[in-house]
Amino acid sequence: MKTGDQFDSLSPIDYRYWDEEAAKYLSENGFTRYKLLVELALVRVLARRGICSYAVVKEVEAACGQITTTEVYEEENRIQHDVRALVNCIRAKVSAAAKLYIHLTATSNDIIDSANAVRSRNAIERVLIPTLTKLEGVLVDITLREAETVQVGRTHGQHAVPITFGFAIAGYVSRLGDSIETLKALAEKLPGKFSGAVGAYNAQSLFFDDPEEFEHEVLAELGLAPAECSTQVVPPEAMTRLLCEVTVAAGILANLADDMRNLQRTEIGEVGEEFEAAQVGSSTMPQKRNPINFENVKSCWKIVAPRMVTVFMDQISEHQRDMTNGGSIRTHPEIIAYMVHMAKRLARTMKKLTVDRASLERNLAMQKGLVAAEPLYIILAAQGHSDAHEKVRKLTLQAQREKRPLEEVVISDAEMQPYLEKMTPYQRQILSNPSLYTGIAAKKAKAVALHWKQKLEL
Amino acid sequence: MKTGDQFDSLSPIDYRYWDEEAAKYLSENGFTRYKLLVELALVRVLARRGICSYAVVKEVEAACGQITTTEVYEEENRIQHDVRALVNCIRAKVSAAAKLYIHLTATSNDIIDSANAVRSRNAIERVLIPTLTKLEGVLVDITLREAETVQVGRTHGQHAVPITFGFAIAGYVSRLGDSIETLKALAEKLPGKFSGAVGAYNAQSLFFDDPEEFEHEVLAELGLAPAECSTQVVPPEAMTRLLCEVTVAAGILANLADDMRNLQRTEIGEVGEEFEAAQVGSSTMPQKRNPINFENVKSCWKIVAPRMVTVFMDQISEHQRDMTNGGSIRTHPEIIAYMVHMAKRLARTMKKLTVDRASLERNLAMQKGLVAAEPLYIILAAQGHSDAHEKVRKLTLQAQREKRPLEEVVISDAEMQPYLEKMTPYQRQILSNPSLYTGIAAKKAKAVALHWKQKLEL
Amino acid sequence: MKTGDQFDSLSPIDYRYWDEEAAKYLSENGFTRYKLLVELALVRVLARRGICSYAVVKEVEAACGQITTTEVYEEENRIQHDVRALVNCIRAKVSAAAKLYIHLTATSNDIIDSANAVRSRNAIERVLIPTLTKLEGVLVDITLREAETVQVGRTHGQHAVPITFGFAIAGYVSRLGDSIETLKALAEKLPGKFSGAVGAYNAQSLFFDDPEEFEHEVLAELGLAPAECSTQVVPPEAMTRLLCEVTVAAGILANLADDMRNLQRTEIGEVGEEFEAAQVGSSTMPQKRNPINFENVKSCWKIVAPRMVTVFMDQISEHQRDMTNGGSIRTHPEIIAYMVHMAKRLARTMKKLTVDRASLERNLAMQKGLVAAEPLYIILAAQGHSDAHEKVRKLTLQAQREKRPLEEVVISDAEMQPYLEKMTPYQRQILSNPSLYTGIAAKKAKAVALHWKQKLEL
Amino acid sequence: MKTGDQFDSLSPIDYRYWDEEAAKYLSENGFTRYKLLVELALVRVLARRGICSYAVVKEVEAACGQITTTEVYEEENRIQHDVRALVNCIRAKVSAAAKLYIHLTATSNDIIDSANAVRSRNAIERVLIPTLTKLEGVLVDITLREAETVQVGRTHGQHAVPITFGFAIAGYVSRLGDSIETLKALAEKLPGKFSGAVGAYNAQSLFFDDPEEFEHEVLAELGLAPAECSTQVVPPEAMTRLLCEVTVAAGILANLADDMRNLQRTEIGEVGEEFEAAQVGSSTMPQKRNPINFENVKSCWKIVAPRMVTVFMDQISEHQRDMTNGGSIRTHPEIIAYMVHMAKRLARTMKKLTVDRASLERNLAMQKGLVAAEPLYIILAAQGHSDAHEKVRKLTLQAQREKRPLEEVVISDAEMQPYLEKMTPYQRQILSNPSLYTGIAAKKAKAVALHWKQKLEL
Repeated sequence: MKTGDQFDSLSPIDYRYWDEEAAKYLSENGFTRYKLLVELALVRVLARRGICSYAVVKEVEAACGQITTTEVYEEENRIQHDVRALVNCIRAKVSAAAKLYIHLTATSNDIIDSANAVRSRNAIERVLIPTLTKLEGVLVDITLREAETVQVGRTHGQHAVPITFGFAIAGYVSRLGDSIETLKALAEKLPGKFSGAVGAYNAQSLFFDDPEEFEHEVLAELGLAPAECSTQVVPPEAMTRLLCEVTVAAGILANLADDMRNLQRTEIGEVGEEFEAAQVGSSTMPQKRNPINFENVKSCWKIVAPRMVTVFMDQISEHQRDMTNGGSIRTHPEIIAYMVHMAKRLARTMKKLTVDRASLERNLAMQKGLVAAEPLYIILAAQGHSDAHEKVRKLTLQAQREKRPLEEVVISDAEMQPYLEKMTPYQRQILSNPSLYTGIAAKKAKAVALHWKQKLEL
Repeated sequence: MKTGDQFDSLSPIDYRYWDEEAAKYLSENGFTRYKLLVELALVRVLARRGICSYAVVKEVEAACGQITTTEVYEEENRIQHDVRALVNCIRAKVSAAAKLYIHLTATSNDIIDSANAVRSRNAIERVLIPTLTKLEGVLVDITLREAETVQVGRTHGQHAVPITFGFAIAGYVSRLGDSIETLKALAEKLPGKFSGAVGAYNAQSLFFDDPEEFEHEVLAELGLAPAECSTQVVPPEAMTRLLCEVTVAAGILANLADDMRNLQRTEIGEVGEEFEAAQVGSSTMPQKRNPINFENVKSCWKIVAPRMVTVFMDQISEHQRDMTNGGSIRTHPEIIAYMVHMAKRLARTMKKLTVDRASLERNLAMQKGLVAAEPLYIILAAQGHSDAHEKVRKLTLQAQREKRPLEEVVISDAEMQPYLEKMTPYQRQILSNPSLYTGIAAKKAKAVALHWKQKLEL
Repeated sequence: MKTGDQFDSLSPIDYRYWDEEAAKYLSENGFTRYKLLVELALVRVLARRGICSYAVVKEVEAACGQITTTEVYEEENRIQHDVRALVNCIRAKVSAAAKLYIHLTATSNDIIDSANAVRSRNAIERVLIPTLTKLEGVLVDITLREAETVQVGRTHGQHAVPITFGFAIAGYVSRLGDSIETLKALAEKLPGKFSGAVGAYNAQSLFFDDPEEFEHEVLAELGLAPAECSTQVVPPEAMTRLLCEVTVAAGILANLADDMRNLQRTEIGEVGEEFEAAQVGSSTMPQKRNPINFENVKSCWKIVAPRMVTVFMDQISEHQRDMTNGGSIRTHPEIIAYMVHMAKRLARTMKKLTVDRASLERNLAMQKGLVAAEPLYIILAAQGHSDAHEKVRKLTLQAQREKRPLEEVVISDAEMQPYLEKMTPYQRQILSNPSLYTGIAAKKAKAVALHWKQKLEL
Repeated sequence: MKTGDQFDSLSPIDYRYWDEEAAKYLSENGFTRYKLLVELALVRVLARRGICSYAVVKEVEAACGQITTTEVYEEENRIQHDVRALVNCIRAKVSAAAKLYIHLTATSNDIIDSANAVRSRNAIERVLIPTLTKLEGVLVDITLREAETVQVGRTHGQHAVPITFGFAIAGYVSRLGDSIETLKALAEKLPGKFSGAVGAYNAQSLFFDDPEEFEHEVLAELGLAPAECSTQVVPPEAMTRLLCEVTVAAGILANLADDMRNLQRTEIGEVGEEFEAAQVGSSTMPQKRNPINFENVKSCWKIVAPRMVTVFMDQISEHQRDMTNGGSIRTHPEIIAYMVHMAKRLARTMKKLTVDRASLERNLAMQKGLVAAEPLYIILAAQGHSDAHEKVRKLTLQAQREKRPLEEVVISDAEMQPYLEKMTPYQRQILSNPSLYTGIAAKKAKAVALHWKQKLEL
């Protein structure tokens, strides 16, 4: 058994990206704690129904407060059964009279699956969602602050037409906001079970006329609803959907991190991660300012996304259950834990994001004329030019060849004269100064930010 | 360019599992059809707003009715741009006056993403959900018919305690029912977009004071709502969530198929796929009755589940979009198509499922005594036996060693006498005839089946 | 059954990325052709052993030449067994005397697995490797041509120290060269089988004293060696390893495509995809020059990589085989086909790659001074400066703050004087002109290129 | 920072499946140890070349012996750079004179990638391969012991024709043997690098005329060869191929575990996992004997296989490297560690595997007559029956319908008489006693086992 320090760990989630808040729920110690809570909930309901005394509840509560995962593993080592080991540990700490109520009518997965549901829900509601909400708040602030800051829009890595930096971030506000709401809804739907060894309440029926009501009461102690129909295990779909959404949210964060990382390229330089005074960028290149936090968020997404296939595989269990997902199911909480790490790191980094207005302007100016190609084409088309797209394509090629601004080439093109004359002042202005051509970027950015600020009470 | 027959195809979805109903929406021809519908919706709204005449709408409608994917590809081959090729094909078929309204203010992905949303929603609503609902109906029928048919419950591939066959199927009724409802909700949420090249309505703002209202009107023609905030592309999350749920549903089907396949093992023989008169089981072993339909459903799930990682990868697109998901996004509809194939095949196979009652009884009887170990342990525990689990474990070992029924061993065990005397008649009966120990399996099976029969109007 | 044109296809590999050369082997028609070759090989060996006459071989050869996949599928439709259908089609075309030798002692997978091995090997050897070798040739040419073209090296998207463009490409020459050799070796190792229904040569033993020798002879007709030990199916590992390597090679191509795509960003502009005269970059932005070919290669890699999980899943088959990989195994050839598409497209695009020397110089000059930070730190350290890394870090911060060249800041720093005096002329020169600081990039680039040019006879 | 016990871990590889032997190489402490070895190798070569004295080597050796990961992390926490932190820790422990040789000319990844190569190679060669070889030895023993033990062969979960149990295991001996040899070859090929910040030996060229030779010498200290051409990082393909093979080997183990697990089903019962005296099968069903070890091996494969997609993703790194694989690459060693766990657990379980001959015979007898359908069909075909397959299919249907042995039905069928008369005694005998129809199963099993026993010196 492992005895060394944390660096004897193999998984980076246990030494480098380990998070105390997440571990409270998602570690093996957290799991033990929640399994004990389920055993306790059972005894509480037995007492309420008059089957055992409240003194038994007190005994069990005291016993559960003392049990360590280490002693459970020692007992498991002896008898080779994890939940029975837990039960034995409780029983060893209570009176003979109380012993018989421990785990009464329960099967292992009544405990395991219900514990998993509560701890996962709590980890989502108490750790992940607050962290994502904090990140959302940072993004809302940036959106509002930079709503009017013009930036060239980019598609295919090429300059397209202008937007504002705030508008670019507003897209993430909207996507992340949606995901936070979806996570909330899915976490609340995680069901528990207390239906016995094959889900038909066989054992419970020996004692209770209303085994479904009994299940309902035990789970209500934990804030859970029962699955409509379970086998030895709870149907896996609710957890699968929740983990899908965690992965979807991770994709949104990775997308944002990727955007920031690219804007930080030496040649682009529109944003920067603030460096700490003593921070070293490279072991040999002291001048480097590497976007390591954004890179890390993207990298953790690479850990998370493929693991959904393990979760999908774990959906399949033969008949009333086989245990070919017994080991793999233990890795599911890591998905949530990596996501907590990503969200915390991204919130921290975005909070200190610096936006370089000079670079934004310089980049926008690079192809100023060409950025006007789109409005020019659309105006020509709307004026009835029979082949506007092709005409503008040729004008831009000419501008590039002759290294002249597009406006100049247009003005000196004979065919263009009647069209220029018919343009509205605004249309003509855009041709001269394409940075005006931002559509409703600023307005939209603010509207989206305010919508989510209100909705999530940021 | 490919000219041969369907067997020149490389993907089994195009020769072996191809489905006409699914292809109507999910094939490249289906895609062309929907892209034309979006271009038409645009012109319709322009006419309604008085920008063009209704005669233009008629022209465009007629033109769209004639366009084939083949001619669009020929034009794309010339100009290397897919949507511009489509636009050129429409323009070539309308009057000079009408030409200028085609695609006005739109960017390619206004067309592509909106078309994809409608066709995917329609494929889900018109093909997948009806097929899954038909399967659900078959499962409901089996559940009701076999609600009382006792079957041994199995965990870890080992006999556990009894259930009923209808109860085993009811679990799938519940899981599939949930998934059908989730699919419905997610398909309805697929958004469209008409916000231009970088999502800021730049082009639309040249003409309309209310570009968001304009977007709303165009998309309403297609039954879509706009995304809250888009870039060049619609935010990918709604589609990702939908495909996650398709994969989740595929997992449910694969699980059911796996169960049936295992029940069909020679040694178990509890169910059978009905064989057609001329069907050959093996090319050299004429006696074989292979569960090839169940195997195929499981196998198609192996195709589908890993592909979700491609979908997760496609969530990430730089800035206002890059096109490193341009090819891969074209494979997303295959996920739905495989699922349609799986659902149709499984519905057909389950409809003809034969249940072998003799085998069910024989298997249940195999370890009859041992199946009673659980109730015995629970009864002893409840009567206050201080170490019930361990005592019963030893009694079952003795029964196995001596090849005697568990009841016999119990009766002849001195220590057991006082416990036997205190048992209720029902408890005592279960020890003799463990097949009575099915909890509320039958009742639950019926309740679940009736709930979904009503909810889905089966 | 599908009867429409290619655009009724759902998979892009069957309409958009379909390749005639690849389809010859990897399509369903290609598969039929190879299965017939295996049936023919069997009869040839029977004739050589004197079991049937050579006239039978002629008959079978003629029959096989006529059979279409369509008729095999029609027969399969009737009897629900694919290989038996194929056998019936051959039998229907030969004399009564010849009939009995068709498929004699064979099980379906003797035919299927052996056919799959030959066609996959041929697709790799005749299509994929020649295409990759052509790409390798293009890369070797670029490497040699640009071996001396200085480019700034980049890590984390940030300027690091200089290399040459040829050196950057040389890395891909080396990686791709290795992969070509690995592919060759793995394709040659694909085994066949002719060991009957459960791999124990049960049927073959009824007729031959030397069933392993018989298997050897049949497979030798196809250029295959037998697996050391098979079940009903050939062990899946050889094919899994081959497909792993195809995926590894796809990763190399995607990495190269990604690099080129990034160098093509508007702000960087070091390379360009040559545009065709009539090519359209965007449906609304006529000026755009999008790196769509590089983007497509990356995107196809996103299709391929996750599918390896399907291949890994298909490795598992119960006992002498179950058929839960029967459908999914049909998708394996798509991995090779996508890779053929990627390789052809990348070879074509790289062949026309334009390198913009002006941009290369401009970018290198951007942070000229800072690029010298590394050599300065290393020289100081080697001269015994006790904290060289920290000292240089501070000097670069000062240079950035004061917007002065690093060399200037160093010269005016009192502490630096003794170090400057002790520098060799070359070291001093690098500080003034960091573009000389390319290590052995040019020499290495040429050596790597020449090594592979010779090894692969380019 | 994590301070609690091992059960504060989130990943099961760090609390439940943690292995001391594997952790020696694959934990973060193991990584630190190997990074220090690389730094030491550098100084050794500097001394051999006369650049520094051997006293420096001694100092560095002593310093490295004292450094803990904890102190490196504390320093990293201060300066935000992992390898620079390691370097600072060494420098802090050596004389001023020695300081300047530490890390001289190296970039972080010269250290990291080379350390990763050696530790991975050592983990494979010293832990994984010996464990797999031990498992192979157990399988060879079973194969030889059970070479003649007749078992019904199964395809599609249905009885096919007989083999021997030893033959079934021999297939795994062959597959695993191949994989062991492939792992060996691939581990030896892992390259290192010492080529500086962008792979062009920029820094090394400041001091050495022969930087490639210098790299060669440093890596030779570690038993590594240099990559032909690297960037800031070593080309990822060698590691990717090695991890692919680990995953392939995991698939073989999972397949074997799955077979055993299925043979252990209550209805089949051909094998059993030996239970320990105190072992508990279920928390409520004391009679259960669950195949938890085989289930666990299958489950760990579900963890491993999808993670290869992370490895494939990590193959892509922009230009001379980006660090979007910096976090994810840290999870690669987990793949090896899970595999070590799987191999140890499977070796232990297979060693105690019990084979139940009575069950083997009972199962074989279940459909005795029908098993003879294949040889009957083949014999009829060879005797010239024009439609042997169809005739036998009908005879088996008749046998099933009338519940009579196939032999009896055949004997009483008029059409069969001439064929029965022409049969050889062996052919006739098989019809009566199909358990003789095992082909060369026993012979092949022994040959395969002896081949690998000799090759791997078991």
